[in-house]
Amino acid sequence: MHGGAHIGFIGLGVMGRSMAGHLLAAGNSLRVFARRKETARDLLDGGAVWAESPAALAENCEIVFTMVGFPQDVEEVYLGTHGLIAGMRPGTVLVDMTTSTPELAERIAAAAAARGGAALDAPVSGGDKGAREAALSIMVGGELSAFERVMPLFLVMGLNIVHHGPAGSGQHCKLCNQIAIAANMVGVCEAMVYARRSGLDPEKVLKSITGGAAGSWSLSNLAPRMLAGDFAPGFFVKHFIKDMSIAAAAAARMGFDLPGLALALSLYRKLAGRGHENDGTQALYRLYQKGE
Amino acid sequence: MHGGAHIGFIGLGVMGRSMAGHLLAAGNSLRVFARRKETARDLLDGGAVWAESPAALAENCEIVFTMVGFPQDVEEVYLGTHGLIAGMRPGTVLVDMTTSTPELAERIAAAAAARGGAALDAPVSGGDKGAREAALSIMVGGELSAFERVMPLFLVMGLNIVHHGPAGSGQHCKLCNQIAIAANMVGVCEAMVYARRSGLDPEKVLKSITGGAAGSWSLSNLAPRMLAGDFAPGFFVKHFIKDMSIAAAAAARMGFDLPGLALALSLYRKLAGRGHENDGTQALYRLYQKGE
Repeated sequence: MHGGAHIGFIGLGVMGRSMAGHLLAAGNSLRVFARRKETARDLLDGGAVWAESPAALAENCEIVFTMVGFPQDVEEVYLGTHGLIAGMRPGTVLVDMTTSTPELAERIAAAAAARGGAALDAPVSGGDKGAREAALSIMVGGELSAFERVMPLFLVMGLNIVHHGPAGSGQHCKLCNQIAIAANMVGVCEAMVYARRSGLDPEKVLKSITGGAAGSWSLSNLAPRMLAGDFAPGFFVKHFIKDMSIAAAAAARMGFDLPGLALALSLYRKLAGRGHENDGTQALYRLYQKGE
Repeated sequence: MHGGAHIGFIGLGVMGRSMAGHLLAAGNSLRVFARRKETARDLLDGGAVWAESPAALAENCEIVFTMVGFPQDVEEVYLGTHGLIAGMRPGTVLVDMTTSTPELAERIAAAAAARGGAALDAPVSGGDKGAREAALSIMVGGELSAFERVMPLFLVMGLNIVHHGPAGSGQHCKLCNQIAIAANMVGVCEAMVYARRSGLDPEKVLKSITGGAAGSWSLSNLAPRMLAGDFAPGFFVKHFIKDMSIAAAAAARMGFDLPGLALALSLYRKLAGRGHENDGTQALYRLYQKGE
């Protein structure tokens, strides 16, 4: 545990609340801001201090973490009139843990450097569970000296923390993660569809195939939910579409094709178009069901 | 270990040789046949007896295993003039461990039943390594009484043995396995392509993503070979194309679309068209490299 720093946390969704809670429990002085103040209730009861804006929060913090929704939210929190960049002091390190665009991460890093501080992009994988259990994988881009300064706090939230290179590198790595998941979700889903349509017992199929070369986290964890008709979100369809869109745009800009990603993105967009954007990603199975 | 039965083995490729070797070592009386007699050398030295044809082999065996290449090979070995069906005695059980079509498995089962015996389809996963270590997953279709009779011998070759239903069910299950692998190979490959093209160190990316929701057998085992440019076959591109083609045809006949499978199949056919059909499946990475 590492305590005693003056830190800030912005964005108190399911994951952000857990992560901020660990930082507070480790003995740090914590300031928080969120779009809806009620999401901060437990943290405020536990001793955190409310800030009226990102700028106001940044004025009093050495290190600020953000975990918001979409790149436009990141842009507003960092570069808006009352944003972090406007309020930060020289020497402050800003750490965006949202999955966002590599380009925005580069712009924010440049803006922070111009104010005498630094910014890291540090998206995570591991979901609610990883956040709750302080077992996240954290993929970091930005200046090495800033990374080393934040490392003790990363270790309060995660287990597998890797520095990938300059600003934007953390986002690029997270996009690799999402690209691998995207096509695999299609494969897992199609294997379960084939099992059912060919008259097999899909549970027995999982018993035969989960431990071998077809095995994956998604097959072990999401295929059983598909079969049970449990489409409740672990990870939202709308957020997965955001991430895949960022990856597809980045690949296009760099000049290469990723047809598996393109297929997964088109299927998930179809799913969202049918009203399932707030389902979990395993709801892809719905698209293959008759009548959907 | 289960020994003492009069059994036969046809098809002595890398996997078949290991599997037949385990059956012989367990104390069974073993007759063998293969297209090329020299592949039987070690088994014959160890006490196995050569048969001049599948029919001649079947005349002297209670249980016969086959592990050949393509459905047309299965058809010839079973239904040809000097095939197993022609030579089998009443009560014999024939067990095809080749990955082949569910329809052919049904035809063979009917033909075996008409001769007073039975046939099982029992394709495997686990590859060379699983065959060598007697750790295969075996997916079985056909009559339950025949399955129970062969079970002690399955246990000499494999660890995870599941009966999936009537003739053809083992093949259907194996196709589920290949469908899950197919789209995932595309995802693993595209993640590595993105990593390299975006300037990341792909080894560090694997460190960040292998243990989480992007994790899979293929990511752990084949992505490192992609990065090392090691395209030597574990599992041949040409065999994977065969399996995916069978699955795609079966799905089409049953009346549903599997777009992820269709994409993977089209990419692997393109790869084979460029002369890489005898590479391992990780060679898909070649397609995404500049100049390929």
